[in-house]
Amino acid sequence: MKGKIILEEAFNLPRLAEDEAKKYASVHGAVLLGKALADIDGRIAAMDEAGIEMQVLSLTSPGCQGVSDPVEAHKMAVESNNYVAEKVRANPSRFAAFAAVSMHDPKQAAHELSRAVIELGCVGVILNDFQSSGPDGNVMLFYDNPSYDTFWATVEELDVPVYIHPRLATTTIFDQLYRDRKWLHASAWGFANQLSVHILGIATSGVFDRFPGVQLVFGHMGEHIPFDLWRLDHKLDRDRFPEMRMAKNKTIRDYFATNLHITTSGNFSTRSLQGAIAELSSSRIMFSIDYPYEDGLMEGSTWFDALPLSQPDLVAIGRENALRLLKLDRPPHNMKSGLTLKELEIGGLGDVGRSIGSAFDSPP
Amino acid sequence: MKGKIILEEAFNLPRLAEDEAKKYASVHGAVLLGKALADIDGRIAAMDEAGIEMQVLSLTSPGCQGVSDPVEAHKMAVESNNYVAEKVRANPSRFAAFAAVSMHDPKQAAHELSRAVIELGCVGVILNDFQSSGPDGNVMLFYDNPSYDTFWATVEELDVPVYIHPRLATTTIFDQLYRDRKWLHASAWGFANQLSVHILGIATSGVFDRFPGVQLVFGHMGEHIPFDLWRLDHKLDRDRFPEMRMAKNKTIRDYFATNLHITTSGNFSTRSLQGAIAELSSSRIMFSIDYPYEDGLMEGSTWFDALPLSQPDLVAIGRENALRLLKLDRPPHNMKSGLTLKELEIGGLGDVGRSIGSAFDSPP
Amino acid sequence: MKGKIILEEAFNLPRLAEDEAKKYASVHGAVLLGKALADIDGRIAAMDEAGIEMQVLSLTSPGCQGVSDPVEAHKMAVESNNYVAEKVRANPSRFAAFAAVSMHDPKQAAHELSRAVIELGCVGVILNDFQSSGPDGNVMLFYDNPSYDTFWATVEELDVPVYIHPRLATTTIFDQLYRDRKWLHASAWGFANQLSVHILGIATSGVFDRFPGVQLVFGHMGEHIPFDLWRLDHKLDRDRFPEMRMAKNKTIRDYFATNLHITTSGNFSTRSLQGAIAELSSSRIMFSIDYPYEDGLMEGSTWFDALPLSQPDLVAIGRENALRLLKLDRPPHNMKSGLTLKELEIGGLGDVGRSIGSAFDSPP
Amino acid sequence: MKGKIILEEAFNLPRLAEDEAKKYASVHGAVLLGKALADIDGRIAAMDEAGIEMQVLSLTSPGCQGVSDPVEAHKMAVESNNYVAEKVRANPSRFAAFAAVSMHDPKQAAHELSRAVIELGCVGVILNDFQSSGPDGNVMLFYDNPSYDTFWATVEELDVPVYIHPRLATTTIFDQLYRDRKWLHASAWGFANQLSVHILGIATSGVFDRFPGVQLVFGHMGEHIPFDLWRLDHKLDRDRFPEMRMAKNKTIRDYFATNLHITTSGNFSTRSLQGAIAELSSSRIMFSIDYPYEDGLMEGSTWFDALPLSQPDLVAIGRENALRLLKLDRPPHNMKSGLTLKELEIGGLGDVGRSIGSAFDSPP
Repeated sequence: MKGKIILEEAFNLPRLAEDEAKKYASVHGAVLLGKALADIDGRIAAMDEAGIEMQVLSLTSPGCQGVSDPVEAHKMAVESNNYVAEKVRANPSRFAAFAAVSMHDPKQAAHELSRAVIELGCVGVILNDFQSSGPDGNVMLFYDNPSYDTFWATVEELDVPVYIHPRLATTTIFDQLYRDRKWLHASAWGFANQLSVHILGIATSGVFDRFPGVQLVFGHMGEHIPFDLWRLDHKLDRDRFPEMRMAKNKTIRDYFATNLHITTSGNFSTRSLQGAIAELSSSRIMFSIDYPYEDGLMEGSTWFDALPLSQPDLVAIGRENALRLLKLDRPPHNMKSGLTLKELEIGGLGDVGRSIGSAFDSPP
Repeated sequence: MKGKIILEEAFNLPRLAEDEAKKYASVHGAVLLGKALADIDGRIAAMDEAGIEMQVLSLTSPGCQGVSDPVEAHKMAVESNNYVAEKVRANPSRFAAFAAVSMHDPKQAAHELSRAVIELGCVGVILNDFQSSGPDGNVMLFYDNPSYDTFWATVEELDVPVYIHPRLATTTIFDQLYRDRKWLHASAWGFANQLSVHILGIATSGVFDRFPGVQLVFGHMGEHIPFDLWRLDHKLDRDRFPEMRMAKNKTIRDYFATNLHITTSGNFSTRSLQGAIAELSSSRIMFSIDYPYEDGLMEGSTWFDALPLSQPDLVAIGRENALRLLKLDRPPHNMKSGLTLKELEIGGLGDVGRSIGSAFDSPP
Repeated sequence: MKGKIILEEAFNLPRLAEDEAKKYASVHGAVLLGKALADIDGRIAAMDEAGIEMQVLSLTSPGCQGVSDPVEAHKMAVESNNYVAEKVRANPSRFAAFAAVSMHDPKQAAHELSRAVIELGCVGVILNDFQSSGPDGNVMLFYDNPSYDTFWATVEELDVPVYIHPRLATTTIFDQLYRDRKWLHASAWGFANQLSVHILGIATSGVFDRFPGVQLVFGHMGEHIPFDLWRLDHKLDRDRFPEMRMAKNKTIRDYFATNLHITTSGNFSTRSLQGAIAELSSSRIMFSIDYPYEDGLMEGSTWFDALPLSQPDLVAIGRENALRLLKLDRPPHNMKSGLTLKELEIGGLGDVGRSIGSAFDSPP
Repeated sequence: MKGKIILEEAFNLPRLAEDEAKKYASVHGAVLLGKALADIDGRIAAMDEAGIEMQVLSLTSPGCQGVSDPVEAHKMAVESNNYVAEKVRANPSRFAAFAAVSMHDPKQAAHELSRAVIELGCVGVILNDFQSSGPDGNVMLFYDNPSYDTFWATVEELDVPVYIHPRLATTTIFDQLYRDRKWLHASAWGFANQLSVHILGIATSGVFDRFPGVQLVFGHMGEHIPFDLWRLDHKLDRDRFPEMRMAKNKTIRDYFATNLHITTSGNFSTRSLQGAIAELSSSRIMFSIDYPYEDGLMEGSTWFDALPLSQPDLVAIGRENALRLLKLDRPPHNMKSGLTLKELEIGGLGDVGRSIGSAFDSPP
């Protein structure tokens, strides 16, 4: 399929990428990853090959959320936003960007988000799970705290989506759980374990009731949430926890009809996607890769292009949902909605091959 | 769910209903059916109870298609269209109508359709499979014949959907196949067997290539077609049959993205609907009952309201798809698009119940 | 996957294959097909390449069912059964066979089936839809006629499955329906339309009530039946048709738990297979190709091996269900049940690839 | 459906039940729960009503795993096993039991399990997540530690399944994560977050490679695991973590074909079950309730009996899988395998209702 849009795609400031690559130099793939993160312009050829028209860039995790010093975190946000905005300006038909913000101070976050959207043209914002805070960096700030209402109010006013992304807990709090099974701590399992609590914290704190226009996006086929919605809603004990501020008569599933969206980043599972469509509908799901943490753009694109999905669902998930949510039809991106199957290069005989077997089917 | 729209719902002209009921008097249910078909005004209370806001009426099968005399068939169309238009005018917020047309003469059909849409406000047209023709009524006219292009051109120009509906073959042509297994001839199996050939004839004759705006709707979860699309497209031998006028590089599946729609009429199967969503996407499926051939409006509505579907899919299939395809937001129907979950009475705690089981979950 | 079994695989007697190829010489692919049908020994290399351990052979359609002369039809059955039995004896670890029988005379059919199973080692029988009969061959004999009870009794006693397979109606009875859309008459659509009526005729005539041990298999993902079971059962009017001999409190779906099985022959559709599993369970579905009407063994095998199915379902559908139903663990076939994933070459890292992306996931 | 088996069903020793009820007296439902946990004999009437033939009892969570004193934990195990064995002896056709064991000392656990299985007739063992240990109870013992190999060896030798069940972390380690969103800590979300890490720890530590006969069961539709298998297997970095002892060429999905099973306890979600069947096959899923933490036996049974599943899947999930895994066909339970649809009271016209609508379908 041509014309695909992807939206969980990381870059790093060149100076940071170099540092990281050095720090992790002994780890398989680290140098390669560091280079891939720092290179934005070089991505276009691979996008062409993979049928990807638009890539929404975001500062790689943990970004500002990993910086426990409030001043440094904000500096990184401003630097990153200015940097990526320039990259987008150079190629607005191929790149868009999510803003980075320090979440130490909700007002400052709201202000930098406004600047990034209004002045720099960012189409949304990415938050890498909790904000590291405190002198040793081991305090976790969660955005379901009432103090963040000012941030959510600005999000609603700007009418841009928030992409919430996992990060590693550098604190020691999970030591007992993961110490002897480190391989489960990060992207294989623990990332979703942690981030899902944050996402559900935001939902159950009533953010979407107070700010019904807020649109929250998360990747990896939903961070474990879509497939356990029934039990989650069934077990949320509204009587025992009067301090749970979510509307008493609503369910998490309800918010998936109005405020929540997922992407396929890093989870190229046909069955999981089919299950997610059944749980959430194709209207709440968007294709994404998680570049460069997935090996190039081709594995995910090849998977997507061959999916046993209806053509309307391919178009919705591969392009139209993101185009609409991120308003990519507006300048400077000017993407087109409503392309034909032919323009998107889907459908046709390619899907079904040809059978030679009808030779004796009926008399000539 | 409130606000549902249904669109394969039959009525009969009172004089014909009486005749039918007499003719089939010995058959279980015939008298009851006859009364239900003739009564339109009395349906509103049942619609209220079942959460149905709008019912699109159509002359019951075979209607004009069963009348082999061209003059009589056209007379029936005009009478029926005038009759139902009056019913709609009396209650435009609860009723809309599909026109009936005689298909003996494509030009006459196109003309009556124009009158019914432009002058009477019909929102589409229903065709009950083939038109009976010939002196003994045993000639079957199919609308994939090139002579019907004038009809399809008018359909496209008027921009209204065509609902194609099964009918009994009163001819003797299927005698050998069904004689000793009559129970398979009609709604249980044979209806779909026959109608599917007609639908696929229309598609493979290239109607949708020549008239890309034509929208064709069929009921009963797709008349066997959605679940065999791969084999169908795989086996359509484009080389052996150069006279097959459909675009050589297109598949039947392609037309499901642009021209074909199905409804759930008379097929309240959760698995079939889930399968149809997987094959076609929720954007091509509309709820319908097949009243009064199904026993009232409640069985189908109760089934629909309890479906394990996402809320966006419930809204699309139960209301929005039909509203948009039939343009029911226009006068005199003035239906509203974009109602909230609360207005539609879906979602909330009703779906998941409540668990008392958390009492020992965590310390008080 | 290694160790697969396929069971709708055609051969032709060399002398007949030659005739057919001549008759259809002008048709694309006919000569090739004729050669492939006549060649049995040459199939083993392709089976090895495709991971197919066992191929169950059957005389190609219409076989004896297309011969309206009873004497000739029986002669063909005997000749074919003797011929294929020899082929199986030469390679019993790679080939098994379904018997061919003339269905003009139920007793004769039962007798030839007994001979083929007991003396020749056939593991079941194939019936190619109705038996052509009458002076002009235009009379169709269906096996739901009470006269066939003697045949079904023998089937039950021998405890072997019946594979019922489509064939072309050489009679003129469908002329009106298919004349102007011939491409729909055969494998693309009409085959299943006709055969499904025959299958449902057998079920509704009570064959499975009177002979509960009878196991009926049909291909092409179920000849349209699995996906319309609800409506079929809902609409079978037990009151109006007291002559319908099926148990009054049973449904067609019930027989899918006890007497009916389908295969994937010629229908390599991931969605249809997933739908069939949902409707029927994986325990009633068997992999098959429809060689040589499908283009070699690789397309179907490649599809099957890459299916997004659980490993237990792959094993059941690809091997174990057929092994058990056809008792292929017995001499001379001696297939092994319960092979490990490793022996079957499924599972492992091949399914999920490897991600390089964890380099920065967690500190080294 | 009659004849159902359920296997995540809690009881409490009467003296403990009373203590708990007092401790949580202020919590809604606690007294009721306490009574329900202590009453075993009184469950039979409700089982009859709900079509449940067999209930496998287990000491309620956290049981011995919550007792950080090794002597007390073992004493509780012995007391509980003796107590429940007597209850089973009184009604072996309606009750079976999982043993409780203290997991402080793997050898002692193995010994008590042997006694419970061989002398008392327990059909397996339940483990409530980690064993609380240490002076303040805040040390968590996980069973993927190599020291537990002696326990797993005994499990394999006894050939009984291990049911692993969630428990609350009474330690303070999750304080930051759950402090301000307590409602997510327990059954709604956190239980599965924690238990899934333990389950995956066991799998990735190679327990199933060293003891391939071990069968591990977990409830709540798989504790988030089945729906993220692709990403999990994709992201488990075998190169970076040479200390991960699981076979390098295997996936977690592979173990679902040989060692892992899930139940529906407390997760009566049609979509999740359908998804789990697609991911794991119906052969690895068993019906269960989670009594009395779910409100009686009827909600879960009513849900199960009305599921849109094939009859073979209903039988497998509702009865046969558990019967086989727990060997409930042996004395003293003597359950019957292979009951008919009629004996199980599934299928028949109840599923599809009846249509009156065929009155005009075809001439009388």
